[in-house]
Amino acid sequence: MKKAVVLLSGGLDSTTTLACAINDGYEVIALSMLYGQRHSKEIESAKKVAEHYHAKHIIVEMDMSFLHSSALTSQDLKVPSHNSASEVKADIPVTYVPARNISMLSLAAGLCESEGGDAIYIGANSVDYSGYPDCRPEFFEAFQKVLNVGTKCGVQGSPVKIITPILSMSKAEIVKLATKLGAPLQYTWSCYNGGEKACGHCDSCLLRLKGFAEAGIKDPVEYEGSI
Amino acid sequence: MKKAVVLLSGGLDSTTTLACAINDGYEVIALSMLYGQRHSKEIESAKKVAEHYHAKHIIVEMDMSFLHSSALTSQDLKVPSHNSASEVKADIPVTYVPARNISMLSLAAGLCESEGGDAIYIGANSVDYSGYPDCRPEFFEAFQKVLNVGTKCGVQGSPVKIITPILSMSKAEIVKLATKLGAPLQYTWSCYNGGEKACGHCDSCLLRLKGFAEAGIKDPVEYEGSI
Repeated sequence: MKKAVVLLSGGLDSTTTLACAINDGYEVIALSMLYGQRHSKEIESAKKVAEHYHAKHIIVEMDMSFLHSSALTSQDLKVPSHNSASEVKADIPVTYVPARNISMLSLAAGLCESEGGDAIYIGANSVDYSGYPDCRPEFFEAFQKVLNVGTKCGVQGSPVKIITPILSMSKAEIVKLATKLGAPLQYTWSCYNGGEKACGHCDSCLLRLKGFAEAGIKDPVEYEGSI
Repeated sequence: MKKAVVLLSGGLDSTTTLACAINDGYEVIALSMLYGQRHSKEIESAKKVAEHYHAKHIIVEMDMSFLHSSALTSQDLKVPSHNSASEVKADIPVTYVPARNISMLSLAAGLCESEGGDAIYIGANSVDYSGYPDCRPEFFEAFQKVLNVGTKCGVQGSPVKIITPILSMSKAEIVKLATKLGAPLQYTWSCYNGGEKACGHCDSCLLRLKGFAEAGIKDPVEYEGSI
């Protein structure tokens, strides 16, 4: 059976991506990174999703708090709410974590090679996250080249393949695909904040809510207040 | 002042590389990774080297024990001594850590970008470690492309530059360069094993000893027994 490492954050996109890997016939190893996130909600979601699929789940802790310049790794920077996000959107968002996808793909590549796997699935999206340089097709093409020339299996002619099934999809398309594949969206967590329920106000919640609305599907997760 | 992140393992090569960065006029941030090494000797060496240069030193812990296929991260695989190494040398060595340099460069890239740095120095060597795919020039060229297209500073026109000062040098040339630059070689640790003194028998010790011998310079570190 073909084997794939799936980067699983516990959000909508990575969960849909895991469902794609299963649907493509892969035995899945889920890989989650604890990189000094501001809350552990995502990891709990990732665990539930991996359990749902009876997938082996590896959680790697890596303290990335030395990356001071991102709101997702630093306590000093505030995750922007929708009201303050407009000025940020014109540039690269403050939630951009320097070299995050590069680091996660690197670990996934090591694991995949170690396990004799064939592919890495990553739920990057260049539509909604157009401000992130490491979510663009040219980044993944460049990284594929690194795996071709810089890993043992690459040099030996069978490089690990990076697969980005939702790279060019809108959020509504992702929601529809996830629903079609029966992905357990009730377990997913997309909110940038770590409350009991999703905040409904951060960029990530707004994107998600818009996606469900456009898809005409009810979001199974709960939101704070009147959202 | 220009700023560089230097990957510092505490060995001869990375210490020489740090000395090169200082000599090139950079303010240096040393970055060491604890990746489930079998001993902590290297990290102690790295600390002493960084202190010697009064460099900021960041140590990142990352449990890479989930990479079962390398002798440097797994307790189950034996680091080859010289006697058993010949069969391994024809292929990629068992001490190859899947995607290690990729992972270390990724973290260095994140740190460098976060700190507003200009360059990453890495003491990779394609002469003595010709069996490692991630020590070859084509790997570093491919990774540079990743930084150009996949990071914020790259997209904005000022990518972090990967500098590999000793990539094509023999071990003897490295020893001579280190000595010329006044690098504190007495603090360095190259041995794959974690004894009180260097073993003098592992591939890494043998390479180092050969380098010093060919350079006509006395190795300041102590070795076990009669070596």
